[in-house]
Amino acid sequence: MDFKKLIESRSEEHFKNYIPTLSIDCVIFSFHETTLQVLILKMKDQYGWGLPGGYVKKEENVDDAAVRILKERTGTENIYLQQFYTFGNLKRSESAFEEYSDDLWHKQRFVSIGYYALAEHSNLKLIVDEYSSAVEWHSIDNLPSFMMDHRAILDKALMTLREQLNNHPIGYNLLPEKFTMPELQKLYEIILGKKLNRGNFYRKILRFDILIKLDESRKGGAHKAPDLYSFDLEKYNAALKDGLQGSW
Amino acid sequence: MDFKKLIESRSEEHFKNYIPTLSIDCVIFSFHETTLQVLILKMKDQYGWGLPGGYVKKEENVDDAAVRILKERTGTENIYLQQFYTFGNLKRSESAFEEYSDDLWHKQRFVSIGYYALAEHSNLKLIVDEYSSAVEWHSIDNLPSFMMDHRAILDKALMTLREQLNNHPIGYNLLPEKFTMPELQKLYEIILGKKLNRGNFYRKILRFDILIKLDESRKGGAHKAPDLYSFDLEKYNAALKDGLQGSW
Repeated sequence: MDFKKLIESRSEEHFKNYIPTLSIDCVIFSFHETTLQVLILKMKDQYGWGLPGGYVKKEENVDDAAVRILKERTGTENIYLQQFYTFGNLKRSESAFEEYSDDLWHKQRFVSIGYYALAEHSNLKLIVDEYSSAVEWHSIDNLPSFMMDHRAILDKALMTLREQLNNHPIGYNLLPEKFTMPELQKLYEIILGKKLNRGNFYRKILRFDILIKLDESRKGGAHKAPDLYSFDLEKYNAALKDGLQGSW
Repeated sequence: MDFKKLIESRSEEHFKNYIPTLSIDCVIFSFHETTLQVLILKMKDQYGWGLPGGYVKKEENVDDAAVRILKERTGTENIYLQQFYTFGNLKRSESAFEEYSDDLWHKQRFVSIGYYALAEHSNLKLIVDEYSSAVEWHSIDNLPSFMMDHRAILDKALMTLREQLNNHPIGYNLLPEKFTMPELQKLYEIILGKKLNRGNFYRKILRFDILIKLDESRKGGAHKAPDLYSFDLEKYNAALKDGLQGSW
């Protein structure tokens, strides 16, 4: 079946099962090989790339719909997921589905609720569904062009990470259980969008007393093996409640 | 016309003019006589109080709808308005409109986008519309019971103020142009939900270099007239961009 016929064949079922007007888009971040990456997909008939998303069932809480969509798209449900903004511009999806009939489900006006997720690569499956030709991780430094307003949704998610860095467990959810100090600093630099002084960063992050220095170091490599750390989850959560304090 | 007939008479027009499924609720804060107050209203046939709200027109951006609703409810449009969360629980409005027919507009499932506004009492008119029996400012320390999930929406707005205090111009938009240091401290205490040490607070807020000490003091009262301050808007906005730094 060609793509147009596939989309059209699903329209009636969508009208029956989902509440109108509302969609969900997920910005799934991962910190991998010292770059911040985002999971994006290519719909078969769109020029730009898109964020994984979906709709809300008639008998479903909106937050539960986000969890379900994430699971359908990645096979995972136990990852950090947070609503961050709702996108409601009248013309936000104007250019998509132009060649379809006006009564197509996908061509209706949708206001989209944005959720961001924080995950490790290894925890997610990349599920290429029947609408998509590709699902890939891309570094935020090197993104392709996007369909509809999905680039603006992604940028707003990034801005939210930056604002919430001192109040939400963002480092904890993006880093592996054991990490080195340079990895932690790199993550902060990417989210804050600026270089940080190494000495200042170490002093500040250690002063919060939220890290545990492990009795092991990373193997391999010609250089001195770097020390490994993990978060002291109890102290970390207590510190986030008040907000981690200090400029970076 | 009694209230039930009034609501029923508007249903058809609402289906025609507004997009389905979506509503907007506004949490309008004001700092008045050293208390943080919120504007709430009493709908004629509901037991609990409610937040001022409305719907999104078919040919209207969601953010523009929030501005329009605020203007219809308060006569004002130039106040600080910020979307903060979208509330989508299936049963959020279950108890309202129970005695009405299932095809009534108001009885449909609505997912509500929350906006908070920051304003001065004197800038707002309290408009009692045909659906309401009262519109009042209430201190957040002394709130009545609410209809639907409006108390949860209000609490989430307050939590957002707390998280955004160091990144958004909340002090500037809640205080009058000229204010005393005790007033500023009181506002921070209410939003943060804790007493602050006077000396520490003064030192910290002055160190940010975001205030201008005015060459005047407040008249009246038996005590020494307190100094007046205002925000240095340029420095304040620059500081917020990085985030005001330091624990309170």
